[in-house]
Amino acid sequence: MRKDPLTDTVSLDEENNCISIIDQTLLPGRVEMLSLTGEEEIIEAIKKLRVRGAPAIGVTAGFALYLLMKKSTADNREDFVRDLRERKDHLNASRPTAVNLSWALTRMESCALKHLEADSADWPTLKNSVTEAMHREAVAIRDEDIEACRRIGEYGLTLLKDGDGVLTHCNAGRLATVRYGTATAPFYLAHERGMQLHVYCDETRPLLQGARLTAYELSSAGIRTTLACDNMASYLMKEGHINAVFVGCDRVAANGDAANKIGTSGVAILAKHYGIPFYICAPLTTIDIHTATGAGIVIEQRDPDEVSELWYRERMAPSEACFDICNPAFDVTDHDLITAIITPAGILRPPYDRSIAGIMEAG
Amino acid sequence: MRKDPLTDTVSLDEENNCISIIDQTLLPGRVEMLSLTGEEEIIEAIKKLRVRGAPAIGVTAGFALYLLMKKSTADNREDFVRDLRERKDHLNASRPTAVNLSWALTRMESCALKHLEADSADWPTLKNSVTEAMHREAVAIRDEDIEACRRIGEYGLTLLKDGDGVLTHCNAGRLATVRYGTATAPFYLAHERGMQLHVYCDETRPLLQGARLTAYELSSAGIRTTLACDNMASYLMKEGHINAVFVGCDRVAANGDAANKIGTSGVAILAKHYGIPFYICAPLTTIDIHTATGAGIVIEQRDPDEVSELWYRERMAPSEACFDICNPAFDVTDHDLITAIITPAGILRPPYDRSIAGIMEAG
Repeated sequence: MRKDPLTDTVSLDEENNCISIIDQTLLPGRVEMLSLTGEEEIIEAIKKLRVRGAPAIGVTAGFALYLLMKKSTADNREDFVRDLRERKDHLNASRPTAVNLSWALTRMESCALKHLEADSADWPTLKNSVTEAMHREAVAIRDEDIEACRRIGEYGLTLLKDGDGVLTHCNAGRLATVRYGTATAPFYLAHERGMQLHVYCDETRPLLQGARLTAYELSSAGIRTTLACDNMASYLMKEGHINAVFVGCDRVAANGDAANKIGTSGVAILAKHYGIPFYICAPLTTIDIHTATGAGIVIEQRDPDEVSELWYRERMAPSEACFDICNPAFDVTDHDLITAIITPAGILRPPYDRSIAGIMEAG
Repeated sequence: MRKDPLTDTVSLDEENNCISIIDQTLLPGRVEMLSLTGEEEIIEAIKKLRVRGAPAIGVTAGFALYLLMKKSTADNREDFVRDLRERKDHLNASRPTAVNLSWALTRMESCALKHLEADSADWPTLKNSVTEAMHREAVAIRDEDIEACRRIGEYGLTLLKDGDGVLTHCNAGRLATVRYGTATAPFYLAHERGMQLHVYCDETRPLLQGARLTAYELSSAGIRTTLACDNMASYLMKEGHINAVFVGCDRVAANGDAANKIGTSGVAILAKHYGIPFYICAPLTTIDIHTATGAGIVIEQRDPDEVSELWYRERMAPSEACFDICNPAFDVTDHDLITAIITPAGILRPPYDRSIAGIMEAG
């Protein structure tokens, strides 16, 4: 068991004015830390998925806007605001569909604008106070992410016991957040406390996030990890290896239907068949009470080449006119297949329309 | 729609004294026919999986022993028998676990020995009559395979209607037999008769037989084919694309439990959840009444490298001490998940212990 604390996926290196990230494009073959300083470097890292996962991208954007504005040469408020908005727009364009990216940048901008309103004897003093506030805000975004994951972990851990085998699908792990992950948070907390779990990772075709990222991050933390192809889940459950399933999610509808990486609904059906509890781990930002049911969630269809080409020396599928390839990125797991939804604010149980409404009103 | 008849996976080229096969190691990228003449060449083709699938290997072995004995230089019965047994042993060792291989070789040997018992004026006349009998036997093995598949196809077709979407897993297709395949036989017959089916192929990790072989063989025959990753089956069923599932099998126990390629049991559970019929296609040779239930079937565990290395430029899984890879080759589908078992002798329905016993007694 490895005892040294794990490196955060994204961290601020204040001394060297840079953001430190694990380059995820090289995993699991090579573990390399990157130091990002300039705007172009940061944007390239987000675009090329060197840093990925909605929460991790949000935290990176917060650190980025702080660092870039700290180095701003603007010598008055107006120029500073123009500079701020320009950099915000550039960063925001790096992954247009990443909700957490624009959310974090807007939050950083609001913080800066609020502090720029203050009276101040001179610009250097004001600038200093504004960038200090931005620093606190960026750190707060980071700390809130860690805390939300830790709380999911604490709640999730109450559903597990020493020696359990657990199955997860795709990567809802540390590499998608700063620390702990969402679906993986209970596993890391269990490991910190000396509890023995055995985590089975679906490899998660077509892009293999389970094999490349989840299996890497858990086993490099010293957690007992077994990789299996997606179609082996039924076998593993039948053989008695799996006591619970923990997965993340991209969006939870008001009735508890949950969209997550393609294959999740199949795992939920298998779990129900074998009488195994199936848990969705959901930061509150993923709960969308304006979507009534999963039927309202549009499933992204991705490039067929991801299935037939991406990982192979040669194309491993035919090219006939009557042939095509199906490549949905997500599927929707019906709420009646979900044993509980684990959020930072507590464990939600069916009926989800009521438990979700309750927690969102409380929040 | 392609109208020319499909090439048989294995055929005898009497004129050139050779066996003609499709080199399956090059599919789907290249379609190359190989002409096998000498013993070493034939053994290499079986060993290297240039020809694969239990029925296709059996037929190849029958043709092989006939051709090799036709060229035998033995000038008396005793030498001929010694030569026959030596060649049989060599061929049999090429894939020790392939039941159809030793079954076909033993059948060819029995045929030869029986005809060698006949009185004959001279050795050339006797040798001629023996090799002619071996020729008939080898052709019979081939024809019986084609007929068994065609019958499965006929019975299977009664369970389908024009416009249906069907899902299959792994390759129980033409490439594993001589013509038609088992699970694919209803699709080929439907196509011959102008019926429109839409076949969805699971890619079938780790070795991708569905992507490389089934999707190739169906689409090259002009059948509308869609390839999907294994974890997309639930999505396809939920979206209403699948009206029935047809799969092959490696062994059926006396109670109807069926062992087949890993992932089959998961597809059966999904089909049951969505109310979709799930059919096992089984030549009579796969029905093993001496195995009471699926619990008696040992699941082969294969090399972890098939999951982490085989198809990739780089290893796509970690290498930590606490990490391992699960790679079962097969799983067992419980009889209560199987809607019907389609055999050349008819469609078996539950309770399978009775319907299987009935058909085996009749046979």
